[in-house]
Amino acid sequence: MPIETYRETYRKRLLESILPFWLEHGMDRKNGGIYTGLDRDGTLLETDKSVWFQGRALWTFATTYADVKDDTAYLDATRNLVDFIDNHCFDTDGRMFFRVSAEGQPVIKRTRYFFSETFAIIGWAAYSRAVKDISYALRAFRLLEKVLAYRTSKDILVPKFNQEIEPSIGFGVPMILLNTAQEVRRALPERKQYLDALIDSLITEIERYFVREDLQLVLEQCAPDGSFMAEHFEGRLLNPGHAIEGAWFILNEARYRDNDPHLRELGLKMLEWMWRIGWDSERGGIRYFADALGKSPTEYWHDMKFWWPQNEAAIANWMAYRLTDDQKYLDRFAMVDTYIHSHFADDEYGEWYGYLHKDNSLSTPLKGNMFKGPFHVPRMYYMVSQP
Amino acid sequence: MPIETYRETYRKRLLESILPFWLEHGMDRKNGGIYTGLDRDGTLLETDKSVWFQGRALWTFATTYADVKDDTAYLDATRNLVDFIDNHCFDTDGRMFFRVSAEGQPVIKRTRYFFSETFAIIGWAAYSRAVKDISYALRAFRLLEKVLAYRTSKDILVPKFNQEIEPSIGFGVPMILLNTAQEVRRALPERKQYLDALIDSLITEIERYFVREDLQLVLEQCAPDGSFMAEHFEGRLLNPGHAIEGAWFILNEARYRDNDPHLRELGLKMLEWMWRIGWDSERGGIRYFADALGKSPTEYWHDMKFWWPQNEAAIANWMAYRLTDDQKYLDRFAMVDTYIHSHFADDEYGEWYGYLHKDNSLSTPLKGNMFKGPFHVPRMYYMVSQP
Repeated sequence: MPIETYRETYRKRLLESILPFWLEHGMDRKNGGIYTGLDRDGTLLETDKSVWFQGRALWTFATTYADVKDDTAYLDATRNLVDFIDNHCFDTDGRMFFRVSAEGQPVIKRTRYFFSETFAIIGWAAYSRAVKDISYALRAFRLLEKVLAYRTSKDILVPKFNQEIEPSIGFGVPMILLNTAQEVRRALPERKQYLDALIDSLITEIERYFVREDLQLVLEQCAPDGSFMAEHFEGRLLNPGHAIEGAWFILNEARYRDNDPHLRELGLKMLEWMWRIGWDSERGGIRYFADALGKSPTEYWHDMKFWWPQNEAAIANWMAYRLTDDQKYLDRFAMVDTYIHSHFADDEYGEWYGYLHKDNSLSTPLKGNMFKGPFHVPRMYYMVSQP
Repeated sequence: MPIETYRETYRKRLLESILPFWLEHGMDRKNGGIYTGLDRDGTLLETDKSVWFQGRALWTFATTYADVKDDTAYLDATRNLVDFIDNHCFDTDGRMFFRVSAEGQPVIKRTRYFFSETFAIIGWAAYSRAVKDISYALRAFRLLEKVLAYRTSKDILVPKFNQEIEPSIGFGVPMILLNTAQEVRRALPERKQYLDALIDSLITEIERYFVREDLQLVLEQCAPDGSFMAEHFEGRLLNPGHAIEGAWFILNEARYRDNDPHLRELGLKMLEWMWRIGWDSERGGIRYFADALGKSPTEYWHDMKFWWPQNEAAIANWMAYRLTDDQKYLDRFAMVDTYIHSHFADDEYGEWYGYLHKDNSLSTPLKGNMFKGPFHVPRMYYMVSQP
């Protein structure tokens, strides 16, 4: 298929199959905010709301409004989400909750992570672009500065593992901050210099610790001195979809920097290694987990196919093709495209299923929960639709 | 098969296939304690140790030594575990860790739960019976008193959900305390009166809140006033293997109380309801999760077959048969027996696999991790082997 056709198809799916599902079934016009616990047909399964998804849905609707189509339904959705975040998602200490009730009362606060914050940041940054109001870009920037401070403070985040005894560092943090900084930069070019430097340091961290020439793998976790934690399940854990997502954040940076050759090769290498580990050449799809040494995995759902690794593999191969013109990447993109539209997309009710077994049969027909909502799927359709 | 043959077969499997696997591959003769992160053939996959399993393995080896066979290898194992628990598993505040390093340094401490404690209690109680030393039964009793105090204190356990906004109570706590109290009573008949009263109150709590005539189900969670939390995934979550485990704790109490008719009928009802929900009549095996209203589950591994629900279903049906002489239960026991020995048992290397897909194919060949070790499998073989 010519890439122009993909672009048009993806735009159409974004606007006609994905966003309408969430607008119709998820948006809470009574209390504000968005529900994500929705069944196949949009029936509400869970009245609590995910704080991650207030920010992520804001990113999705604001970005679509800014870059794809200035539909007032999207604009209304963004205002609803901005207000709900302001009114209900922050604790008095400035940290964000993880889960709130339908009415916005706090239900769960997580002390180990700042992902609620990073998703609010990208939401505000995109909203700033949508409504052309720099004050939201500045709020996003200031919250990013706070998150960076949380990261270095010993007192604010409570690590799960005793860092005196088994110290470790994770790929997920620099990787999500990289994307967060990129989104803030789009909205706030005034801080380009600071954000470029931050992005440089995050990519350096990723490259130094997690992109492992010795193993030809992207690790999720290692010791602070860079040692491979071969004796622990967590040390050997690979998450190909996650690494491939990180790969395209770096390819995106290469593109931003006029096809910077070092960044391009770094992103391509990460994609190459983790595609080899993740792609199920027999049945299609990116598998969830693997073990770096090929040992027996402890995560019993390791061989399931989740929706989002497929989204990330589609974007990464698409972007790799755009940067290299190498047909291999377009062929892989086409493989992912065929796979996802045969197994994940639900043409009857819109949106995607989230969870398939190893053999691609459906595990559960629901469309959303605390971890699936309007983000990875619409982001993929958006990214491919863009010039 | 006559029940005497089952008894002999189960004793033989306990002594010849299960315990040797852990003695040979899990016992750490250098640092003390037991490793449970073992591959199919016993190769070490994870050097950290589960604190749950120091207590649970102690229960298993001590109980086998006391009631099945006084092999000194089992006695040596119990001493190794008792020492490791004393030296490495308690924090200075008296709470226990969740995970420690090979050498016994603390790696993870969980603040929401006291399961490390309940497993140390049953371990000490069994050890007291094995070595006929009442001091360990008294230690078990005192730690049980502490755990009961943690339960009612508002300051010690940190709940995941904000109890002001979404208060809830769980089946797991009274259920595990019921078994813990029963094990302490076996070791410390001197405290029978206190423990009988505690057991009465726990069963009353289970019966009042979680055994639901209105739904004909055993719930895992409900509101403190007993309301069914129909609008939340967690409120609708059913765990048939867990409920069936609770059913046999109650059947066990019925047996202890000369076949008490009320307790017997309560346990049989729980078994009946949750067997209906859990048993896969097409492919065999107890499924992991279900939704109380038959809605789409959010737990994507809901249809997998884990080892331990099969163990609990075997014990519950065996015990139901022993209490009622109703052939239906023996037939079901035989179904479970055929199923587990066709799919879970590994005659080549000993022990069982832990995780099968919905269709009973193997998800991972490992024999243990932080959640699987010498407990449910040997307990089943032990329970069925007993007169």
